[in-house]
Amino acid sequence: MKQKIYSVILAGGKGTRFWPLSRAQRPKQLLSILSSKTLVRETAERMFPLSGPDRTLVVTVAEQLKDLSRELSALPRRNFIVEPEGKNTAPCIGLSALEVVARDPDGVMLVVPADHWVADRRAFRRTLENADRLASTGNHLVTIGIRPDYPETGYGYILKGNVVRGSSIAGARQVKRFQEKPDAITARRLIRKGALWNSGMFAWRASALLEALQRHQPGIAALLNKIRAASAGKSLTRPSPRLAHLITREYNKMPSISVDYAVLEKAAAAGRVVTVEGTFGWSDIGSWSAVHRMMQRDDNGNAANGKWLGLGAKNCLIHAPDRLVVLLGIEGAVVVDTPDALLVGDLKRAQEVRELVEELKKKGLSSYTIK
Amino acid sequence: MKQKIYSVILAGGKGTRFWPLSRAQRPKQLLSILSSKTLVRETAERMFPLSGPDRTLVVTVAEQLKDLSRELSALPRRNFIVEPEGKNTAPCIGLSALEVVARDPDGVMLVVPADHWVADRRAFRRTLENADRLASTGNHLVTIGIRPDYPETGYGYILKGNVVRGSSIAGARQVKRFQEKPDAITARRLIRKGALWNSGMFAWRASALLEALQRHQPGIAALLNKIRAASAGKSLTRPSPRLAHLITREYNKMPSISVDYAVLEKAAAAGRVVTVEGTFGWSDIGSWSAVHRMMQRDDNGNAANGKWLGLGAKNCLIHAPDRLVVLLGIEGAVVVDTPDALLVGDLKRAQEVRELVEELKKKGLSSYTIK
Repeated sequence: MKQKIYSVILAGGKGTRFWPLSRAQRPKQLLSILSSKTLVRETAERMFPLSGPDRTLVVTVAEQLKDLSRELSALPRRNFIVEPEGKNTAPCIGLSALEVVARDPDGVMLVVPADHWVADRRAFRRTLENADRLASTGNHLVTIGIRPDYPETGYGYILKGNVVRGSSIAGARQVKRFQEKPDAITARRLIRKGALWNSGMFAWRASALLEALQRHQPGIAALLNKIRAASAGKSLTRPSPRLAHLITREYNKMPSISVDYAVLEKAAAAGRVVTVEGTFGWSDIGSWSAVHRMMQRDDNGNAANGKWLGLGAKNCLIHAPDRLVVLLGIEGAVVVDTPDALLVGDLKRAQEVRELVEELKKKGLSSYTIK
Repeated sequence: MKQKIYSVILAGGKGTRFWPLSRAQRPKQLLSILSSKTLVRETAERMFPLSGPDRTLVVTVAEQLKDLSRELSALPRRNFIVEPEGKNTAPCIGLSALEVVARDPDGVMLVVPADHWVADRRAFRRTLENADRLASTGNHLVTIGIRPDYPETGYGYILKGNVVRGSSIAGARQVKRFQEKPDAITARRLIRKGALWNSGMFAWRASALLEALQRHQPGIAALLNKIRAASAGKSLTRPSPRLAHLITREYNKMPSISVDYAVLEKAAAAGRVVTVEGTFGWSDIGSWSAVHRMMQRDDNGNAANGKWLGLGAKNCLIHAPDRLVVLLGIEGAVVVDTPDALLVGDLKRAQEVRELVEELKKKGLSSYTIK
């Protein structure tokens, strides 16, 4: 069974919420935020026990290909799929599914974003193995749900339905429906009802995903079919100039739409989506405050990457690998130090870093937003 | 009359409260905090209209001589008096008085610390000229009082007595007594009574100061007399090795004591101290919060030296000449950026920066406390 698993790492994101550390040419997945390794390398190494370097694929955009293939030197060059244009997840997962079926018509895809954090690798692996079993036996579309720690308003939620018939996988449930990012009150209610966080990680046979696209997104499916026909069963990762041109032309016609919205919500209504519950310590680390939550903190709630000293500092996050930081009587702040720019912010307002980057561009300071 | 004025700039301080900008080899007077010039250069240039470079003397310690003479290149080398050891103001002003009487037995000394800030130079000059007239006509010991802006607890206060008899100088009053740094309630009461801040700036004939030392501090006076006898009326600024040895020996026997405590409090009780009121905008800039108070601020109360951007930033002080600083939702903070160390602190706790420096030394990080 194991031979058929392919990992598909989604690595096209930008991550402006991590400014000043993240820049246009150094997106979040290429940052070392929670360990000494970059997030994308952590992700790849997490998948290797499941799919090995040979069957671990990376989807990205042309601008990031060089940096990513350098960072993931364990992967063969033919495992990098280039999106002609950064679209949302439905087109990009569809393109990856074509690559997987070209390699193995029965292949199962484990789809994982490149820039998430997992605390317990072993538990993660067990959950993904269960997801693979569900995907390969029942032809299910499997989404990995996370048991919530607190009522996060930045995540979508999965409402569980019945136990999956004929399955021996503990915690496998039908998905009743998906709920978009809720407000705080709704989030608390969802948690009381046993809803899970939607992690954005999936498992399915590539062929099952293509069938679901055919049913729910015939437009996208038709464009993918043209690409499939032109490639005639060959790999899409190092296309001939002619094939590359065709891929670009058809891909660029696709709408920018998420796989959740394009396929899963509709398939769930038809009873074809299941969820496996993970308890491995997970975050999409969407902002500096999520980083603070995932890091090891001292008795005063401070977490640091770099040398620092505090007098009366509480619940702060410091990222300053190259400079001594001294905090005096500061609470709930994030301090991020880079060679040319320094951020000092209220951790509670970490989501607004994205707006700061826009503000920098408006003020003619966009040189600080690129590497 | 003008020919007889000598300025004596006290430039031996360390200023650890301005860490990380101030270091052991870069004390406060050598920092450019409130303008593009160093404080000591601002001070010297403020005195030149009164005493000219030729009669502007600087008292400092050996470690700072090189940096100071480079910074004050307008001054002749023979105008630098070196304290054998950093003592408090009484010994150091006593030594300077010997130098002034050697040059001019009737010379008036204007004593000013090297690291204070004055907003209005012209008003400053008028006040000092008045102080000089009082000092040279009545043989008074004159102390410059500052009309308080608010009940500062970090300054000493001067309680005024009667108008000075026979003086035509507006605002000249006998000093009834000095009050050490008060608590906030006492400070408010002092201000209601018309008390002035004690600026630590003085004017007197060098001979009058030496007489007062003779009366109130015979021990110090005796040691100074030995130095005077050995120098036989010659300058102390470039002593022969033999004379240097004697100066060091006698000077090191002196107690570390302030001129206020050693002489002025006692002389005031004897009715010999007068004060001239200054309204020229003054601060001893004893901490980052004093710097914030003296700087030009925007509508949100932010003051900056360097490029910065704020979103919801209020009442902050930024000193970061070499790096872009971005503040997000931060209030009442001081951010000081240097090549190897960064301070982010609560402005209200700026006095504690001194303790931080001690803490750094304890933690084996003393390399960050020297240049």
